Amino acid sequence: MTATTAVAVYCGSSPGKQRAYQHAADSLGKALAAAKRQLVYGGGSKGIMGIVSGAVLDAGGDVIGVIPHAMLAVGGEGERVSGDDSTPVLVKSKEERMERVEWVIVNSMHERKVEMARRSSGFIGLPGGFGTFEEVLEVTTWTQIGIHSKPVVLANVLGFFDPLRALIQNGIEGGFIRPAGINLIKFVDGPSDHALHESFDWGKVLLEEI
Amino acid sequence: MTATTAVAVYCGSSPGKQRAYQHAADSLGKALAAAKRQLVYGGGSKGIMGIVSGAVLDAGGDVIGVIPHAMLAVGGEGERVSGDDSTPVLVKSKEERMERVEWVIVNSMHERKVEMARRSSGFIGLPGGFGTFEEVLEVTTWTQIGIHSKPVVLANVLGFFDPLRALIQNGIEGGFIRPAGINLIKFVDGPSDHALHESFDWGKVLLEEI
Ligand SMILES: [Mg+2]
Repeated sequence: MTATTAVAVYCGSSPGKQRAYQHAADSLGKALAAAKRQLVYGGGSKGIMGIVSGAVLDAGGDVIGVIPHAMLAVGGEGERVSGDDSTPVLVKSKEERMERVEWVIVNSMHERKVEMARRSSGFIGLPGGFGTFEEVLEVTTWTQIGIHSKPVVLANVLGFFDPLRALIQNGIEGGFIRPAGINLIKFVDGPSDHALHESFDWGKVLLEEI
Repeated sequence: MTATTAVAVYCGSSPGKQRAYQHAADSLGKALAAAKRQLVYGGGSKGIMGIVSGAVLDAGGDVIGVIPHAMLAVGGEGERVSGDDSTPVLVKSKEERMERVEWVIVNSMHERKVEMARRSSGFIGLPGGFGTFEEVLEVTTWTQIGIHSKPVVLANVLGFFDPLRALIQNGIEGGFIRPAGINLIKFVDGPSDHALHESFDWGKVLLEEI
């Protein structure tokens, strides 16, 4: 009855070089807020992380940031003190917005993953780096071995995750993953015309899969 | 002075459909034993796991199997009781061989990964499924965030891991991974003529990178 509808989002702490990546994050954040579904994320205020969480907060939605002690001390995911490129007004505005985040402080990177998964009904991956790849694959293995059964959905913006699909296919063809394993991760490809990825309603389609 | 030279190997618990995969595992096991480097692995006796550990043991080498309590109870990684396909003599022979494994019993899948990493000087990935992908990426993130600095090497047999290289490249081109990130995982491609992958000395080349 009171099962959560929260969604965990894994993504980069850099903004990425394509406007379509940033647009997808913004679109997802707006859709989460509109659907009154809580965002559970790694707590960063920069990059794709900052865009998706900022979009939820700006639209009046709820955000839970799950962050290890050690990372909190240095200012969050991917954040480092830099003396010369800060814009005080922007920073202040960001901080005010971030005050609405509900923080969950954990003891380790592993505890963060467990806590994010526990608090969510499903998982969405946006473009990111090694950490994003690993988190998406880890929650997938948790489904595979029966720890949970929650959807894993990837925003395959500009085909970013195509190689991951090919890797899974190699695992299947190689005899290491059952054919049904291809269904453990749902790839949302968006329009075949990639020029439309900067305006596509990623949030709507992603949430339909969760 | 007494730093370990042990190597953690991540791989599938199925044998895979290509003889080259099995050959690479056997080659690596023999090379580890010859170099007197301990194998640290997930403890399975089947599939690629069984081949690499069996090759080490048959050559008189040392093997540490790290396995969670829960998995020990069902007979190990990827093993399930099946009443009709057992060959008693083979099973007995396998069991005798497995008696030389030094077992480390842990409390969770996560503790297994930590323990395998702690006991090893580097990591080698052979073909496998989701678990292998995730384990390779996790130890890579541990290097990236400074938890350790140990080489991660993949046996790219028949180009099995080519899509992972493409995924990392997407992360770099997309602005989420620094260009130097491509060096966090070393891909050992073997001969450009894939027909030679069934006889290539994978063990020698893999250990040269560790
Ligand atoms: Mg992991």
